[in-house]
Amino acid sequence: MYEKYWQRMGDKTTVVISGWQFTSYFSDPKNLCWFLEPELAEEVVRLHRVVGNAITKDYHIVVGTGSSQLFQAALYALSSDASEPMSVVSAAPYYSSYPVITDCLKSGLYKWEGDAQAFDKSGPYIELVTSPNNPDGFVRQSVVNRSGGILVHDLAYYWPQYTPITTPADHDLMLFTVSKTTGHAGMRIGWALVKDEIIARKIVKYIELSTIGVSKDSQLRAAKVLRAVSDSCGVAHPFKEETFFGFSHHSMESRWMLLREAVNRSGIFSLPEFTPGFCNFWNRVFEPLPAFAWLKCGDGIEDCESFLRGHKIWTRSGRYFGVSPSYVRISMLDRDRTFNLFVKRLSRIRSQRRMRLEHVD
Amino acid sequence: MYEKYWQRMGDKTTVVISGWQFTSYFSDPKNLCWFLEPELAEEVVRLHRVVGNAITKDYHIVVGTGSSQLFQAALYALSSDASEPMSVVSAAPYYSSYPVITDCLKSGLYKWEGDAQAFDKSGPYIELVTSPNNPDGFVRQSVVNRSGGILVHDLAYYWPQYTPITTPADHDLMLFTVSKTTGHAGMRIGWALVKDEIIARKIVKYIELSTIGVSKDSQLRAAKVLRAVSDSCGVAHPFKEETFFGFSHHSMESRWMLLREAVNRSGIFSLPEFTPGFCNFWNRVFEPLPAFAWLKCGDGIEDCESFLRGHKIWTRSGRYFGVSPSYVRISMLDRDRTFNLFVKRLSRIRSQRRMRLEHVD
Repeated sequence: MYEKYWQRMGDKTTVVISGWQFTSYFSDPKNLCWFLEPELAEEVVRLHRVVGNAITKDYHIVVGTGSSQLFQAALYALSSDASEPMSVVSAAPYYSSYPVITDCLKSGLYKWEGDAQAFDKSGPYIELVTSPNNPDGFVRQSVVNRSGGILVHDLAYYWPQYTPITTPADHDLMLFTVSKTTGHAGMRIGWALVKDEIIARKIVKYIELSTIGVSKDSQLRAAKVLRAVSDSCGVAHPFKEETFFGFSHHSMESRWMLLREAVNRSGIFSLPEFTPGFCNFWNRVFEPLPAFAWLKCGDGIEDCESFLRGHKIWTRSGRYFGVSPSYVRISMLDRDRTFNLFVKRLSRIRSQRRMRLEHVD
Repeated sequence: MYEKYWQRMGDKTTVVISGWQFTSYFSDPKNLCWFLEPELAEEVVRLHRVVGNAITKDYHIVVGTGSSQLFQAALYALSSDASEPMSVVSAAPYYSSYPVITDCLKSGLYKWEGDAQAFDKSGPYIELVTSPNNPDGFVRQSVVNRSGGILVHDLAYYWPQYTPITTPADHDLMLFTVSKTTGHAGMRIGWALVKDEIIARKIVKYIELSTIGVSKDSQLRAAKVLRAVSDSCGVAHPFKEETFFGFSHHSMESRWMLLREAVNRSGIFSLPEFTPGFCNFWNRVFEPLPAFAWLKCGDGIEDCESFLRGHKIWTRSGRYFGVSPSYVRISMLDRDRTFNLFVKRLSRIRSQRRMRLEHVD
């Protein structure tokens, strides 16, 4: 979806890398995160300052091959001293990859225990707090709320195109990713902000074991793209389409308007309703515009995914997210053509139903 | 070490990537390995054909974030149906990262069981065959040699600058990496050649779970660098320094000559002796020139790593490789300045010893 913006930017974010550059494993041997390109570190700090969505002072920055790798590195770092597998929980609906990634190697360090709201085991645990949440877009806080818990905050969507920036986040361990910030999923670059030095060192250790660092080429490119985003915020009123967040926020707004119209007309579907909030970045109140639509099927349709597949709409069933299959998750970030086709097909479902009713009458 | 070659090549391997390119997770949705850039796949096939070191026909190519990630993906793929942890073994001296990576998450799927030569457990097992071997440079075959074993061939060093190419390898599962082929460690790009489709799919699945694919930017760059290597083989006699393998082979030869001289003069140290072999690529006989020197301390020195550290030479002790600390591993691929300093310091050890003897006389 953000492709169009980057096309308009022309050569501003073009990277040129010569054959002899970035050959080494090392980026900055003296840094705790020795494989982090200093240029990327600088741009991460700058962008958080420009947007005001996270504190970086006194935090260690660790780069990862996307935030998925950082999530696994965090699990390793937080559980490596545990005598028995630590429970990993997240309030349902949770990101569908969490259970799969957590349990894929049957680790003796940690174990997926499902919905944090139903969690009643004793012993230490790790709670994953995704805010705004994937799949439903709501702002979240931890729910287990007892001692012995360690929180991992996945803040992939805490950016002003999606949700009001209410306060600079300052949690112990926060994860971000370029793919949701600027749309460059193919780079596979994420970063963690980590308060505790020992935990940060263990996260670095895991990434060393897992992939001996992170692509320098993509780090360089990520630095350039983040710099362009920060730069764009300085040259025009943030709301103008010349700024990256202006462009992306307007795109999200018009998509959500189209989707809500189609859903309201349908009579079959419903979407979450969000409370508007004051955004310090935009300096105005707005209603969250999540990267996913969390659609609920009514009318007695139990398996929403199959129902929509019958109408040539591919979605992901609620059961992967720990809830009922009457829900599905739909990406709001696809290319214009795909998104418009989706809204068109969704609108047709209503027409067909009404036609059937009229036919019965 | 190869930096100099790539500098001489000038702009031939320069990549230029615009801000709007490679934004998607997908490279080739119809391919089994949906995150593999078709350009890279082509160049992998071409380079293996040019060098003659591996069969690619009827193999699936899976790209990874370096071959470390592919090694873990292979463990997952080969053990995911096992009812109890599969034994993972390799003949000592083995690559020091194998035990650490295998056991770091205390997986219930697989478990490090050490030296393959001492392995006597029943049940299925995975044997890692690194050939030429890291750390000692010898050509290897599997040693356990009983039913129920699955082999993973790590062929990172099976290239004509290091060892005679005697036959195109055609094992079930073979791992390669750009870092050892061309020296571009910072790209973090490796590839697996996999015969069995089901295993290939599981390897892809692991990389999807672990990092949702592999940096597109580095894949593009890797394709360009591999293409330059293949191209260079066509334009001049392979032995000329214009060709990548000509340059790198000559560099390895002169380094090994310098090192063997210093070691022979020392009277303290010894190096492995290799049988020369006929190389189909060079069309001549030569003696292996491994990427690591596997140095043994004599003269009653038990801890070679500490001894050398006292002489300002940083090495890795044999104990990490499953053998005696009288051995150390030393990289032969460092920058010229570092390598020359190492040889100089090693030579001085001899002089000091002789001086002491002369003093006693």
